[in-house]
Amino acid sequence: MLNQQIVLASRPHGMPRPENFRLIETPTPELEDGQVLIQHNWLGMAPAARLRMSEVASYREPMAIGEVPYGQAVGVVAESRSQAIRVGETVMYTSGGWQEYSVAAAHELIKVDPDLAPPSAWLGPLGTSGFTAYLGLIEIGQARSGETVVVSAASGGVGSMAGQIARELGCRVVGIAGGEQKRQHLTDTLGFDAGIDYKAADFRDMLQQVCPEGVDVYFDNVGGDVRDALWPHMKVGGRVVVCGLISEYNDERKPGPGWMSILNKRLTVRGFITGDHLDIRSNFERDMSAWYRNGKINVLEDVREGLDAVIPAFIDMLSGRSLGKTLVRL
Amino acid sequence: MLNQQIVLASRPHGMPRPENFRLIETPTPELEDGQVLIQHNWLGMAPAARLRMSEVASYREPMAIGEVPYGQAVGVVAESRSQAIRVGETVMYTSGGWQEYSVAAAHELIKVDPDLAPPSAWLGPLGTSGFTAYLGLIEIGQARSGETVVVSAASGGVGSMAGQIARELGCRVVGIAGGEQKRQHLTDTLGFDAGIDYKAADFRDMLQQVCPEGVDVYFDNVGGDVRDALWPHMKVGGRVVVCGLISEYNDERKPGPGWMSILNKRLTVRGFITGDHLDIRSNFERDMSAWYRNGKINVLEDVREGLDAVIPAFIDMLSGRSLGKTLVRL
Repeated sequence: MLNQQIVLASRPHGMPRPENFRLIETPTPELEDGQVLIQHNWLGMAPAARLRMSEVASYREPMAIGEVPYGQAVGVVAESRSQAIRVGETVMYTSGGWQEYSVAAAHELIKVDPDLAPPSAWLGPLGTSGFTAYLGLIEIGQARSGETVVVSAASGGVGSMAGQIARELGCRVVGIAGGEQKRQHLTDTLGFDAGIDYKAADFRDMLQQVCPEGVDVYFDNVGGDVRDALWPHMKVGGRVVVCGLISEYNDERKPGPGWMSILNKRLTVRGFITGDHLDIRSNFERDMSAWYRNGKINVLEDVREGLDAVIPAFIDMLSGRSLGKTLVRL
Repeated sequence: MLNQQIVLASRPHGMPRPENFRLIETPTPELEDGQVLIQHNWLGMAPAARLRMSEVASYREPMAIGEVPYGQAVGVVAESRSQAIRVGETVMYTSGGWQEYSVAAAHELIKVDPDLAPPSAWLGPLGTSGFTAYLGLIEIGQARSGETVVVSAASGGVGSMAGQIARELGCRVVGIAGGEQKRQHLTDTLGFDAGIDYKAADFRDMLQQVCPEGVDVYFDNVGGDVRDALWPHMKVGGRVVVCGLISEYNDERKPGPGWMSILNKRLTVRGFITGDHLDIRSNFERDMSAWYRNGKINVLEDVREGLDAVIPAFIDMLSGRSLGKTLVRL
């Protein structure tokens, strides 16, 4: 089978550009025992892919030039040398990447149950975005009913999940997003208690206005200036969940730290990645599938078509021009 | 009784200067029921006093012009209208301040047992310095036997306690201090495994050399550049205990934040103050008095004489020119 792949041609400096990538075509490899070949139907765009394109190591090693960028994929098993997964089954593969086919060991795959939710949900609420939000809010942030939770990048893949989970937990939820359209989406569609546009001139005043009693949990997906705007509003004993730093991935600048706030307010600031907490995963699946079935979780997908749409979709996501989880359908 | 007091004459900008303070003499007030008058024998200098001299609120409100700066004191009860504490007893008062006498309610005082340790120890190992170190290391930093613990301002009041407690817990202890004399003191007198001089040209190389496996707990008393030098050495899952930011108290500059490290290494960064954790206090007293009795805790005091020595002692402490806990004997 011929496999169209997008590979890294050069490392981006700042915002990635189309010339940082190249389209190549290679034959799919022979399967080894226990492996399956997956034909991708859906690719999920994730900001974490940008992290690995830089030379600096993060929680994973930087990717090499010539490698296929990281991305989750949902697809159908086209060949199988595993007893556990048959041809024709739908699966989610965390490391599917920006390509038409991938090869994985059966134990690396999560089976998709199409009776529960449409397959693309495994790239959103039932996939890593949903799990990240669940883990960050409940385990890392210790959000409790009645508390005020602020989520940044709140209309994005993880943010929209975090805010809705917080709402289900009985928290007061304030979302931060860029632009009036996204802001309205937070309250009108996602059921947040308030939305704030960080691009608006009165952003800092609005924070004060919608969080007059302060903030218990700040679920941070963006870092940078938005995070720094939160410090004055954090309550004593508050928690800052460091989930992502999208505004800093392109950026060498180191913004102000808020260390005085961490001390003065006895904050707990905690970074996390999902791989460290797989013990939480079964609780997550139980809760999230129940919420999903009961129509509690609104999923907004920004769907693009075809492998050629991957690069513009990725850049749009990093630039804040997409709304909801950015997906590419192949 | 006439009470000589040092009061704040103007707010310092940067390092405090003698002209920011004034010496006044006022009569001691009439006691109310339940109060005692304490004649101070010992004043403890604490960096936290500097925090309250700025206009910006921290975990306590900024002090007013004309007020006596914050400081702990040990003294003898000179008058008493309390059943609980008699004239002649020795007590420690957290808010004694930079003056000859203070008035406190009996319940605000900790009784000093001179059979256990000399009275000045209640301004050090058995007082707030010791409790801060104990709490920060055990409760906030979750230091465990076998882990590598790095302490900054390691020859200071809190730092010298934190390092020695870590040693008693079975940790490998690395202290950071300024200058060769202090550095040697850490290993030769305090029994640390290694000492590093942050003023030395090879400071960052030394960190790598003495912590080749990385750092589990960084007990931070200083903030700023020293904290930022630690980020590359923190282990995944490490803890940064934000106890003090002495290098930033005088300073408007906001140094680099290490947010990428917090995320990539899933660090927990936690600010704390002792007042939130008084439930730990009885464990502390049990453990610390046992260590003290058994000669495990080495106490270095930088003792100055007389109320006139308070301002130079305070400035020396903030400038790193003192060694050990800075005390003034009256």
